[in-house]
Amino acid sequence: MIGPSLFRNRIGTTLIAGGTPVNKTTQIVESIATSGAFQIENIYPLVDGGRFPVKRIVGEPIEVWADIYRDGHEIIAAALVWRLETDRAWKRAPMKFDINDRWGGSFTPDAPGRYVFAIEAWTDEFATWRHGFELKLKAGQDVTLDALEGAAMLTKAQAGGPDASATIVRHCEEYLQSGETEPLLAPDLQLAMAESQLRPDLTRSPLMPLTIDRVRARDGAWYEMVPRSQSTVPGHHGTFRDCIARLPDVAAMGFDVVYFTPIHPIGVKNRKGRNNSLTAEPGDVGSPYAIGGKEGGHDAIHPELGTMEDFKAFVDACALLNMEVALDIAVQCSLDHPWLTEHPDWFKRRPDGTMKYAENPPKKYEDIVNPDFSCEDAGSLWNALRDVILFWVDHGVKIFRIDNPHTKPLRFWEWMIHEVQLKHPDVLFLAEAFTRPKLMKGLAKLGFSQSYTYFTWRTQKWEIEQYLVELTGYPEREFYRPNFFVNTPDILPFHLQSGEEWMFKMRLALAASLSSTYGIYNGFELLEHDPIPGKEEYLHSEKYEIKVRDWDQPGNIKPYIRDINNARRANPALQQTSNLRFLPVDDGNVIGFVKESVDQHNTVAGAISLSRDVHEFWLPINSQVMVDGERRDIAAVENLITGERHPVEWGGLRVRIDPMRDPAIFFRCLA
Amino acid sequence: MIGPSLFRNRIGTTLIAGGTPVNKTTQIVESIATSGAFQIENIYPLVDGGRFPVKRIVGEPIEVWADIYRDGHEIIAAALVWRLETDRAWKRAPMKFDINDRWGGSFTPDAPGRYVFAIEAWTDEFATWRHGFELKLKAGQDVTLDALEGAAMLTKAQAGGPDASATIVRHCEEYLQSGETEPLLAPDLQLAMAESQLRPDLTRSPLMPLTIDRVRARDGAWYEMVPRSQSTVPGHHGTFRDCIARLPDVAAMGFDVVYFTPIHPIGVKNRKGRNNSLTAEPGDVGSPYAIGGKEGGHDAIHPELGTMEDFKAFVDACALLNMEVALDIAVQCSLDHPWLTEHPDWFKRRPDGTMKYAENPPKKYEDIVNPDFSCEDAGSLWNALRDVILFWVDHGVKIFRIDNPHTKPLRFWEWMIHEVQLKHPDVLFLAEAFTRPKLMKGLAKLGFSQSYTYFTWRTQKWEIEQYLVELTGYPEREFYRPNFFVNTPDILPFHLQSGEEWMFKMRLALAASLSSTYGIYNGFELLEHDPIPGKEEYLHSEKYEIKVRDWDQPGNIKPYIRDINNARRANPALQQTSNLRFLPVDDGNVIGFVKESVDQHNTVAGAISLSRDVHEFWLPINSQVMVDGERRDIAAVENLITGERHPVEWGGLRVRIDPMRDPAIFFRCLA
Repeated sequence: MIGPSLFRNRIGTTLIAGGTPVNKTTQIVESIATSGAFQIENIYPLVDGGRFPVKRIVGEPIEVWADIYRDGHEIIAAALVWRLETDRAWKRAPMKFDINDRWGGSFTPDAPGRYVFAIEAWTDEFATWRHGFELKLKAGQDVTLDALEGAAMLTKAQAGGPDASATIVRHCEEYLQSGETEPLLAPDLQLAMAESQLRPDLTRSPLMPLTIDRVRARDGAWYEMVPRSQSTVPGHHGTFRDCIARLPDVAAMGFDVVYFTPIHPIGVKNRKGRNNSLTAEPGDVGSPYAIGGKEGGHDAIHPELGTMEDFKAFVDACALLNMEVALDIAVQCSLDHPWLTEHPDWFKRRPDGTMKYAENPPKKYEDIVNPDFSCEDAGSLWNALRDVILFWVDHGVKIFRIDNPHTKPLRFWEWMIHEVQLKHPDVLFLAEAFTRPKLMKGLAKLGFSQSYTYFTWRTQKWEIEQYLVELTGYPEREFYRPNFFVNTPDILPFHLQSGEEWMFKMRLALAASLSSTYGIYNGFELLEHDPIPGKEEYLHSEKYEIKVRDWDQPGNIKPYIRDINNARRANPALQQTSNLRFLPVDDGNVIGFVKESVDQHNTVAGAISLSRDVHEFWLPINSQVMVDGERRDIAAVENLITGERHPVEWGGLRVRIDPMRDPAIFFRCLA
Repeated sequence: MIGPSLFRNRIGTTLIAGGTPVNKTTQIVESIATSGAFQIENIYPLVDGGRFPVKRIVGEPIEVWADIYRDGHEIIAAALVWRLETDRAWKRAPMKFDINDRWGGSFTPDAPGRYVFAIEAWTDEFATWRHGFELKLKAGQDVTLDALEGAAMLTKAQAGGPDASATIVRHCEEYLQSGETEPLLAPDLQLAMAESQLRPDLTRSPLMPLTIDRVRARDGAWYEMVPRSQSTVPGHHGTFRDCIARLPDVAAMGFDVVYFTPIHPIGVKNRKGRNNSLTAEPGDVGSPYAIGGKEGGHDAIHPELGTMEDFKAFVDACALLNMEVALDIAVQCSLDHPWLTEHPDWFKRRPDGTMKYAENPPKKYEDIVNPDFSCEDAGSLWNALRDVILFWVDHGVKIFRIDNPHTKPLRFWEWMIHEVQLKHPDVLFLAEAFTRPKLMKGLAKLGFSQSYTYFTWRTQKWEIEQYLVELTGYPEREFYRPNFFVNTPDILPFHLQSGEEWMFKMRLALAASLSSTYGIYNGFELLEHDPIPGKEEYLHSEKYEIKVRDWDQPGNIKPYIRDINNARRANPALQQTSNLRFLPVDDGNVIGFVKESVDQHNTVAGAISLSRDVHEFWLPINSQVMVDGERRDIAAVENLITGERHPVEWGGLRVRIDPMRDPAIFFRCLA
């Protein structure tokens, strides 16, 4: 007789007992090679096919999509797996079939870090059996042998937890005792088998890198402060204590990050004078980018700024005001940097034995030398540069603005940022590269958390919109996080040089609303605008001298900056960049846009005038907001600054902008 | 004194002698890791980022493009390298800078095979030095030390050939003797240094696979012949000798490939009867897809067809007529296949010990069993299946049509095709998969040289054009080579079932002109069209019985087929598929197109009516032809069949098609 008895004879006593160790699946999975029975293709998100990490923010769900298929008609299953690079154990989330061999799933890493994720696919052999079994039952076929085949699968399912094992044993026993097939079709058995059956054809995609950053990587208002110019006494060298005294002012403007130009000892030999002159006068303070003196190098503090304790006090004072510190790291050495004597092998020499200065022929930079990244002793140099970062991390700094990274080896940055973030996943790096677009994007791909941009020079509506569409589109949005600076110590763009208040406000409004991360260099709030004639550079640049300013001088736009930064803080939609959508405003000098934060139920519309004349125009918001879990057409807007409300009819709003009063207008959208 | 004398003292006697071994570059290159100083991105052509081979045809130049950059301002260089997978030595071609960090180059493999290619980039240190040196000279700076630095580079350049070495030594000596810098700037020195200097930062991209096939992979007209139906005596089983007798007829129609349905012994147990009935009557011949009998399996010949010598004679007869043979390989076994007894482990058994037939529940295929690709002894099974191919290759067959590859493991095909092509790079595989689009494309990616398509069922202008745009676009064109069959033993599409001559001609014209590879199944030329009612299948299918036809019966369209095939042979433009461009014909039932072969100076325009009524329409050819190396607007066209000429004015032609006479019209374009 063919039936359960035969089965019992042949399979005998191999029925599993409950309570199989629960980590068996993991062990099985770890032993699977990458190439396998499945093709897993067209994976989203990826950067360069998985060569570089996708960047995301902690707490944001990551949607993953892929085409997944194998031969034949079997029922398949798929899952997302992910872990920190340094973890051994994988976390898992199921993927679901969508259509046309496309599968999707999502997961949400709960801490910043360097992750890897992958897609696993396998055949659900029991579900395949069950599907065929049901079709044969329906067709009235003899299923005696089929039932035995299904039951045999039960005896081999060993990878699940104790509950699943118990379910399997129970149904198997029911089948064996009754000879009826119903127990084999029980829904809870199918679930238990999905968990417990071995997955001999499990295929895992290559591991794909993923960098999860903390929220500050995504949004923040930066204030670039030159510490030696923070004294209130003319001619006095500012100190960290002066900087601390300045902080309430900066915090009141609503900034999140205080970014210091270099704070290290400054070289004396070949020191540059005021306005970048080749010879320093007595008393000239030199460029803080000529790093290193007898007091030390990249891990030392310029004595006139104070002590390490003072610096620590500054870091703490920032924290109390909900701000944090960013440091400027320039990989270059003054002629007095201790490394020149401690590590002469790190520097190139000329045939006459002299030091090889930095140069970009025919220009020479005779106050600095660059370490040679490919010197024989490169390993110790690379380690030392990484240790500079780690040193400042130990002193409370978690954000580093890297000066000119595009003139140092790409693989150094990839290695160094990875090394630091493995230990300190909350550390962020901003690439100050102003160079060709692919090189700037390359630096972002290989690890920089944020990047400077061409925004500083973009003035026309078409070029601003084009540039933002590029940065917020694919694939750039997966790896390039723009930080829009309106000015820098090196860049006083032509459009600011006439010193018009509306223009300063407009540039700030553009930067602060289009990009969720932006910055100003101190003095912007005072409308400083004296250039070296014909150049986009500051006259009497504080790169080469001390300045003392009246930070409350008449005509400052601090209240405007405060209002804009407060609006950013109050509106999650403004804390993202790639949610940007431009609106078709019928005015060549007005940019209109909408930003939506679906998760946070916040939608902001804005319009900014690029010219000084009064504009009246139709702002076709045509957007929706979340109300009670539903998306509804907006019915009204509320001015983010004034609180005024206006009804929205026909999907938009008639808007008037007088740039002399305010070149920008922002609304929260209401249902 | 600083100058050449110092240099001589410090560098001393290390000047190289000429005649350095020329293969040094290669050795250096081989030791470089993949990741390096350069980023090499956005490489074209690639399939799935290099996971699968790009497919090309021998003799066709392969254009390669990539973004290539490093840090800094150095002058860089790049090259393409390629080799057969099994070779050790690389071949090289230079790449040239285009714009925006994009580089391009090309190479032309001179033999079919499985290749790898890669991109190398390195810093041209001498050119960088030379550029800076010239700028300093222009600026009037002291260049004494710079000259020494350049000369020092000369002493380290050891990788070039003897001529380059001699040039370097000569200029170096001139500099040393004269103290003048001119010798260092000599153009021939720059070339010699480009060849000879070491490339310490050389970066190579990952190796990318490339399959180079012979021309038949790209174009060919296929004739599917059922050998047992080639007798001229009613009721007689056709033989290879009968098939040989048939060949002049097939050759006269202009076919390139004669494709045989399976020629192996046919199982007796559970043999299917006529019209796929479950029980065979005495004398029923069974399905040739039930492979294997007491006479042997996949490497044996059905005795009624003849002997291996007869088969060889058939292969030779084809060759004499400039045709070649394709064999049909179905990986499945009749119940009499010798493998069932020789290798019982290759087959699944049921709990009662019986063989597990093929099934697709609730359908059962009781005349065949499928080998179990993941059985314990899978290695020997996989080898045996590969050896079946190699067996027939040894017997002169170089093209294999694989039956239902989508129901066997993907990785088996990837492995098997690769194994075979490493030994026999001229062997081609056609995937007969009619399944979901991604699975069909997956089979093409992993190695099948050609693929069946949905063409057989596409009848409307929009869907035909859409489908061709998909297949000839990116990335499909890099890996998917369509073979358009108008019918098959399994498929008698509805549109052929009324047996209208114009329809048969139209489908042939479509297949033969849109795709450079197409096929018909014998009987098409006789307008055979009797279906199983309501199905797209042939009544009295010769899959289950012998047919004897009068191949010259009245109403046949053999002259039409001959004309079309001759036009294909005479026009290189019709021997490609991805050169297709549709023309905007203002008639929903007329497809117009142009195909250009730029290399071969051949341009063909065509128009095909999809409906039976007379059409008059404007065919806006708007194309150009090559004349004396220049592209010129076409001035006239010549009918490919009739030879009639017509002037072309306003870039097009007024065309009249009467499908009852000919549903298609093709022109060669003339200057």
